[in-house]
Amino acid sequence: MVNVTFQKSACQADECVVKVPSGSTILQAAITAGVDLHSACGGKGTCGKCRVILPPEDRTEPLPEEKKFLSAEQIDAGVVLACKRTVESDRQIILIEQKDVFDRKTRLEDDNRVFELVPLVHKHAVHVSVPSTSDQRSDWERLAAGLPASAASLRFNRGIAAKLPRILRDASFQVTAVTAGNDLLAVESGNTLDRTFGLAIDIGTTTVVAYLMNLNNGKIIAREAITNPQQGAGADVISRINYASDHPDGLVQLQIQVVEGLNQIIANMCRQKGIAPEEIYQAVVVGNTTMSHLFLGIDPTYLGPAPFIPGFRQAVTVKASELGLRILSDSPVTVLPIVAGYVGSDTVGVMLSGKIDQLKGIHLFIDIGTNGEMVLAGKGRILTCSTAAGPAFEGAGIKFGMRAADGAIERVKITDDVELGVIGKENESVRGICGSGLIDAISEMHKAGIINSRGRIIDHASASELPPALRDRILNDNGIREFVLAWKESATGENITITQMDIRALQLAKGAVLAGVRILMIHLGVKPDDLEMIHLAGAFGNYIAKESALGIGLLPQVPVEKIQSIGNAAGNGAQMALLSTIEMSRANRLARDAEHIELSTEELFQDEYMESLALGQRY
Amino acid sequence: MVNVTFQKSACQADECVVKVPSGSTILQAAITAGVDLHSACGGKGTCGKCRVILPPEDRTEPLPEEKKFLSAEQIDAGVVLACKRTVESDRQIILIEQKDVFDRKTRLEDDNRVFELVPLVHKHAVHVSVPSTSDQRSDWERLAAGLPASAASLRFNRGIAAKLPRILRDASFQVTAVTAGNDLLAVESGNTLDRTFGLAIDIGTTTVVAYLMNLNNGKIIAREAITNPQQGAGADVISRINYASDHPDGLVQLQIQVVEGLNQIIANMCRQKGIAPEEIYQAVVVGNTTMSHLFLGIDPTYLGPAPFIPGFRQAVTVKASELGLRILSDSPVTVLPIVAGYVGSDTVGVMLSGKIDQLKGIHLFIDIGTNGEMVLAGKGRILTCSTAAGPAFEGAGIKFGMRAADGAIERVKITDDVELGVIGKENESVRGICGSGLIDAISEMHKAGIINSRGRIIDHASASELPPALRDRILNDNGIREFVLAWKESATGENITITQMDIRALQLAKGAVLAGVRILMIHLGVKPDDLEMIHLAGAFGNYIAKESALGIGLLPQVPVEKIQSIGNAAGNGAQMALLSTIEMSRANRLARDAEHIELSTEELFQDEYMESLALGQRY
Repeated sequence: MVNVTFQKSACQADECVVKVPSGSTILQAAITAGVDLHSACGGKGTCGKCRVILPPEDRTEPLPEEKKFLSAEQIDAGVVLACKRTVESDRQIILIEQKDVFDRKTRLEDDNRVFELVPLVHKHAVHVSVPSTSDQRSDWERLAAGLPASAASLRFNRGIAAKLPRILRDASFQVTAVTAGNDLLAVESGNTLDRTFGLAIDIGTTTVVAYLMNLNNGKIIAREAITNPQQGAGADVISRINYASDHPDGLVQLQIQVVEGLNQIIANMCRQKGIAPEEIYQAVVVGNTTMSHLFLGIDPTYLGPAPFIPGFRQAVTVKASELGLRILSDSPVTVLPIVAGYVGSDTVGVMLSGKIDQLKGIHLFIDIGTNGEMVLAGKGRILTCSTAAGPAFEGAGIKFGMRAADGAIERVKITDDVELGVIGKENESVRGICGSGLIDAISEMHKAGIINSRGRIIDHASASELPPALRDRILNDNGIREFVLAWKESATGENITITQMDIRALQLAKGAVLAGVRILMIHLGVKPDDLEMIHLAGAFGNYIAKESALGIGLLPQVPVEKIQSIGNAAGNGAQMALLSTIEMSRANRLARDAEHIELSTEELFQDEYMESLALGQRY
Repeated sequence: MVNVTFQKSACQADECVVKVPSGSTILQAAITAGVDLHSACGGKGTCGKCRVILPPEDRTEPLPEEKKFLSAEQIDAGVVLACKRTVESDRQIILIEQKDVFDRKTRLEDDNRVFELVPLVHKHAVHVSVPSTSDQRSDWERLAAGLPASAASLRFNRGIAAKLPRILRDASFQVTAVTAGNDLLAVESGNTLDRTFGLAIDIGTTTVVAYLMNLNNGKIIAREAITNPQQGAGADVISRINYASDHPDGLVQLQIQVVEGLNQIIANMCRQKGIAPEEIYQAVVVGNTTMSHLFLGIDPTYLGPAPFIPGFRQAVTVKASELGLRILSDSPVTVLPIVAGYVGSDTVGVMLSGKIDQLKGIHLFIDIGTNGEMVLAGKGRILTCSTAAGPAFEGAGIKFGMRAADGAIERVKITDDVELGVIGKENESVRGICGSGLIDAISEMHKAGIINSRGRIIDHASASELPPALRDRILNDNGIREFVLAWKESATGENITITQMDIRALQLAKGAVLAGVRILMIHLGVKPDDLEMIHLAGAFGNYIAKESALGIGLLPQVPVEKIQSIGNAAGNGAQMALLSTIEMSRANRLARDAEHIELSTEELFQDEYMESLALGQRY
């Protein structure tokens, strides 16, 4: 075993030491240490993202993969790919700082949802009858007698029964019993009716969000987000599935990582709000199908290849302690039901939040991430499909793509020249471009005539009609055309450009989404004009400029007023299911009633896909 | 911490080393080491049973308690009381061999019980449908679809779901599912229908017995008994309750001890019969109320003092893994219901085995141990009570009392002289007297006129009519009369006698039992002549001579043909509940319907007790 010490580039004090077998990769060490090192491809050496700096004495010749992804300056500075370098002896590794801004960027909803507050968890103040030789009933029976549910139907809880005799007597037989249906969750001394808390959790492939809720009034007490700690095993679900399948204990590792991430933000929220984790009596979780499997520790192997079979689809409830979630140990943790291998409980949360079964007319719901999930509701039916959009919308696989962090271009406007909106404080140097910026850029470039509807950047000869400032931005780098958004004054000392390749990546991504939508509309027999509303869910839906989404032809052609962002609808659905057993039942019904269209075997899909690649409004 | 090494007196090789804090008693070290050291009083120094030998170099002056309980020869040989001696440095301790003969003495029943075989656990051979893109149901759903219970009602099992995808594919979708009601217990590769096993367990204060059963045909495959490993915390339930209440982790220790004892005999039986512990899918447990609490790890503190309140009384089911029982981890382990603080699930097992609700006429069931539990059934009612008989029937508190082990007098006949039946091989030297021998001896002594009906040993002057051999056996040791059963040729080099104190102890014990029976008969309004049958349960009931039981006046006066031994009826009841859900339901009904008479607050009890002390047939 060798010691690997990770240090942040900004702060030498903030270090982390881990022991790993000699010959492990630096990436494996980082995963073991739980340090946040991005790795979109899951350690295959094909994404070039897992960059770290070796100290001068450890530097060797760059590897072919490093030459491919790293600049000469980076190589000189000691940057290497963590997945390609092994550690044979003790090493100091410096992490390249990757400042995330999820807390700021994830706008969470305190919306005006209207539904009945009918939580599963109830507190009952019980005056337990005091024993005597003329009343020799057991402690369990005398507690149960004080509850609305009859003693016969209250399920035995050994952990509580074990301590109940002492609890009752220490509390002079005045206690508060906490129940969830027929389960007894806790018996607390005195009257604690005013403290009843729950958690709604949305596990995204990229971001994990938790909401601490007051079950007595339905209000959000605190919310906190964290980058999904499974990132080290890859940015997308396929990488995570492969990691879980291919590594010994891979599944266990990923399960622990996401739960420990949750434990961290739960502890933070509890500390800030003066709430004990044991006062959290329930959690409801949504996530895509892979995230749901990994959270529960269920083998996701066969989700990966066709026919994409999940281990389970029904809503499942397990005890918090079984998962390692640090709230009250017997609290029920329910993962909402799943529709299919790539339409998960997060989509069911979107349906629930959108009250999809109560809407009039035809409604389209789209949640775009690495995968796009789409739901088309109307005519008494609910159709779903999912499509592998790829990571372009999240800025991955794009030359200067990055997550929505400081220095990312998030808005682009093209008139006589290019105007940029950049995330971060004023005068933030430009470092790259995030998903919403990319869509803006390509929509504007198309509108300005810099790219044609087939997606091709025009050549200088054809660019004579463009304003000079724009024409100058069209470069040709070894036959690859690119368009400069920001000149060299950027933080990286390079031009930040949109390349021909980037446009192709975006076309493929948006084409997949649009083709999915078209297939759903064919199945339901409706046209774009029939759509009452297009609902965009998730962070991407929040930040995308609706005009640009229409501009690149990501969505069917509707008036811009018919597009609305619905925020973190998946998380809202989790909250609703937490606060109301009626909504929980509705979630089960929606999942059961949804008809899933498997695009991979859909005859029309390839054709629709080809038709959907063009930029501009065509459908 | 110091090392304490325990060695058997017979075999130097068989040793056991344990680390304990300096200042611990040898008894505590023995408990920690799990060595079998008897301690009837639980370490109070009042029983004198926890004898060990110190090596010559460690010997010091005898303590007052040792002088009281040990002979001069024993003190010279280095015998000390383990509860009174502490270890300050590493020590070698020699255990005085206490060979138990439970395997031989516990006659177990393979009786002709007639009841329907309706086990809770079922195996189902399932041909799971193979997934395809036109059938994308989850693995859980496709398994559930192959079971008689609908998928909706099958309770989710995370542990099985976690591995199910691989199990199904490794087994080419041909599996055997094991269910218990709506619970899925296991999914096994291929067809394993012919291997379905269960356990019936009877946890006695003294002896723990387990029966390995074939759930397919109801047959006993193996049975094994072990001394209850909690003995170190005292021989009786009150000592165990005090130990659990007064020692930090005392409850946890006792819980682990009994489960580890069970694990040992389960492993033995499995090895001998070629059965994997994971092929045991259910266990049903009976025991007195204290043993039930300790087995489940439930605080027994308030069972001790009046009003004797148990933590629970209903039948409870927990997973094997929650208790540490090493069978299939999700197997349901059910402890049969309890009637009261001192009428436990063992008595319910007796009721069940006796089919007490189907009998004609008035029937009395008695299970005598340290506590006597009595059940009187008739006129459509079931009355129960319990009485603290004390340990005399088990040979404790009796000068030469011992458990039913080699060298114990188990039969006594008095004619012109004394004839003895001794446990063990021929020519076994006499070492003491066990319960059945004691009752024989006192009954015979009373019949022969050596003691009068008030229990007093006659003096020499009054003994002139006795045969000389008997007269000679009446000794007077410092004013305490005693009767010699075996002269000095015995193994211990002492006379083995019945003292006046021993007779008093037996009178108090049998008086308590008879008084309890009389109270039950008064409550039901019946007389001895009304009794159809007296059923004696348990090992004691098996070995006691019926004539002697009548002879000392332990039982109401009935013809000897109306007394029958019913063997380990508690264990039989556990077997029946294991093999039949109908019998399990019946157990719940019997426990609920039983009317418990609390003798401690029964006005008539003191009077009946006084009336029940005399020897001979009086009631």
